[in-house]
Amino acid sequence: MKNCIVAQSGGPTAAINASLAGVIKGVLSQKEYGRIYGALNGITGILEGRSLDLTELFQNSENLDLLKVSPAMYLGSCRYKLPDMETGAEDYQKIFTFFENMDIGAFFYIGGNDSMDTVDKLSAYAAKIGSQVRIIGIPKTIDNDLCITDHTPGFGSAAKYVAATLLEIYHDTVIYNLKSVTIVEIMGRDAGWLTASSVLARNGYSPAPHLIYLPETAFETEAFLKDVSSLLAKQNNIIIAVSEGIRDKDGKYISASSGAVDNFGHSQLSGAGKTLEYLIQDRLDVKVRSIELNVLQRCSSHISSLTDLEESFCQGQHGVSLAAGGNTGLMVTINRTSSEPYQVSYGSAPVCEIANRVKSVPAEFISPQGNDVTPAILPYLRPLVQGEPDIRFAQGIPCYLPVPHLS
Amino acid sequence: MKNCIVAQSGGPTAAINASLAGVIKGVLSQKEYGRIYGALNGITGILEGRSLDLTELFQNSENLDLLKVSPAMYLGSCRYKLPDMETGAEDYQKIFTFFENMDIGAFFYIGGNDSMDTVDKLSAYAAKIGSQVRIIGIPKTIDNDLCITDHTPGFGSAAKYVAATLLEIYHDTVIYNLKSVTIVEIMGRDAGWLTASSVLARNGYSPAPHLIYLPETAFETEAFLKDVSSLLAKQNNIIIAVSEGIRDKDGKYISASSGAVDNFGHSQLSGAGKTLEYLIQDRLDVKVRSIELNVLQRCSSHISSLTDLEESFCQGQHGVSLAAGGNTGLMVTINRTSSEPYQVSYGSAPVCEIANRVKSVPAEFISPQGNDVTPAILPYLRPLVQGEPDIRFAQGIPCYLPVPHLS
Repeated sequence: MKNCIVAQSGGPTAAINASLAGVIKGVLSQKEYGRIYGALNGITGILEGRSLDLTELFQNSENLDLLKVSPAMYLGSCRYKLPDMETGAEDYQKIFTFFENMDIGAFFYIGGNDSMDTVDKLSAYAAKIGSQVRIIGIPKTIDNDLCITDHTPGFGSAAKYVAATLLEIYHDTVIYNLKSVTIVEIMGRDAGWLTASSVLARNGYSPAPHLIYLPETAFETEAFLKDVSSLLAKQNNIIIAVSEGIRDKDGKYISASSGAVDNFGHSQLSGAGKTLEYLIQDRLDVKVRSIELNVLQRCSSHISSLTDLEESFCQGQHGVSLAAGGNTGLMVTINRTSSEPYQVSYGSAPVCEIANRVKSVPAEFISPQGNDVTPAILPYLRPLVQGEPDIRFAQGIPCYLPVPHLS
Repeated sequence: MKNCIVAQSGGPTAAINASLAGVIKGVLSQKEYGRIYGALNGITGILEGRSLDLTELFQNSENLDLLKVSPAMYLGSCRYKLPDMETGAEDYQKIFTFFENMDIGAFFYIGGNDSMDTVDKLSAYAAKIGSQVRIIGIPKTIDNDLCITDHTPGFGSAAKYVAATLLEIYHDTVIYNLKSVTIVEIMGRDAGWLTASSVLARNGYSPAPHLIYLPETAFETEAFLKDVSSLLAKQNNIIIAVSEGIRDKDGKYISASSGAVDNFGHSQLSGAGKTLEYLIQDRLDVKVRSIELNVLQRCSSHISSLTDLEESFCQGQHGVSLAAGGNTGLMVTINRTSSEPYQVSYGSAPVCEIANRVKSVPAEFISPQGNDVTPAILPYLRPLVQGEPDIRFAQGIPCYLPVPHLS
């Protein structure tokens, strides 16, 4: 009986450990693999031979339950882009030598778009060298921007955090009897899904956020100032949800961008909220504040979505079934069969159809003026934030699974 | 039978509505007052004759329970500094005419240091004109900087948020196998209590925050850089908790201060975290990020401290007893009789001994190097963050009491 290995990569979410728990549970219960190893710091852990044997630790169901609700990556992460096999053969040789030495039959990679690129390359290489190691991708990203799958693990929890927080900011803001503008900057470089989910803070009495700007629509400074001014003429406190990735019609980011780029060539963004704060300060005579939700929107496991955690767990388990069934080069997908009542099934798609593409918020979910979402997005978003996991507290703070030594 | 009126003032907390609920419950159950009114937007609502009759609405215990867990001020707030009675007689006349017209026997003002100044002035004026209106202050401030009382309503919830969030940031940060510094800026202009409470994130496996800087100690840039460098020589990810109010030995704020001041003459701060981020970027060759917890630390009711909410409620009730007993010019206090087991009793103190003074973190709670707190602070802090209120969720987001129309 072969062993298997799992790793996590990319930016953290509140649900990426739920997927890891699903993989572990799948391996332990399906008994298709002998031991389950965890590579530390994603693919770099395999390149450097750093891994843990997870098999015994998670026989204990309490550890597994705790893992399910713990934020970020239990196994650590990396942002390493695997070179093409033509130019970086050495990496591929190292990885498959590791697989051989550890008698690995399947590799599960939990990650976002860039990690799916790694799954794609490794499965192509395996085919080329005739390796029987199955390579399966399990999605995660708070950005919800992977193609084919209905939504991504981690998105629902981040969306729940964003909506709950916007509602709380509404309560915090509405108390003063004077005009004010509050800008909340939300993550999402290319896709506005998470910013769009702020609409869920509108709960019958809260009209916040009053305006929503996504990267899918070209941002026009003058139209924005006009939107804000006309609302201020009618009411006191305006709350604006804005994606970090908003751009003008020429594609230039509305932010105090440093011009730096990360390993994947993405612009390092910061400050769309701050930039708009300064703009309003400069052009409109009104109190203005910006709030950057920062990493809090992806790591606040204490307010994660139970639906998200359960689906993430199931996607981990499904990945094991796919590998055990002889599949490779696939990413687990979630297919929505109904929104009311909410029903899903799990499937898969060739990872080459998913990697390096982006699923944007479609036009029918964005208002014609580009300053709001439409009600059509609600049945899509609403089910994803439902339910609250049972988070235990010790000494007044949440109980999570201690992270192993990662370096 | 006389009526009474209650108002809320200053910055929001997660517990200021629990105190309001306590006042309402006290009035409804003690039957010393006929009707209970709520002035909108603090003392300005009395000056402008804007108030609500709360008597019927909160006969409904479900509304009262919802009020108890709702963030910020149900009745709205203000930042109005009452002038001295010599120069601003008109304000005082308006207020006491309002009291007379509404047949008010007691006024409960829930607020921080500046609101206690108002309580002090109004009770002195009442004495001067021979008014029988009882003026009682009920404290609140996340800053925990009021004298005499053991701790302030709202602090425990904010401290719980800060500690839980620091723990989650630790999980988020520790995943990368590279050197990084994360700076978390925490509210507290003059007193470092809230920043100090970040120590509660150290839970056995989390050493974060590795460094803690309070406004009570003069901040030295070179010592700070040395602290960070020597930690980085030993480990990968350093998390630093820093108060927005840190200053150098000359009392100059370590921040990108605009030099602006608010109505009370306080410097408007922003950016101690950002300033240190830029400093590290400039001087140390390491990845650095700063996170400003911003208003989230005071309005995230979904993770408030049950101990804090219950004590805030009791302090509201106790305020009603004080007024009914014929007292005036007092602030409700909480007296700790034991830390283990945690036991408190409620008392009062003349508000003139509290207003316009600040209780700093004492020297024995701060490390000699000024870059950490001492273990001696733990028995003080720990009981205040215990317990989680039962927050209901509807459609995936928290249920709070809708705010009335405030303007």
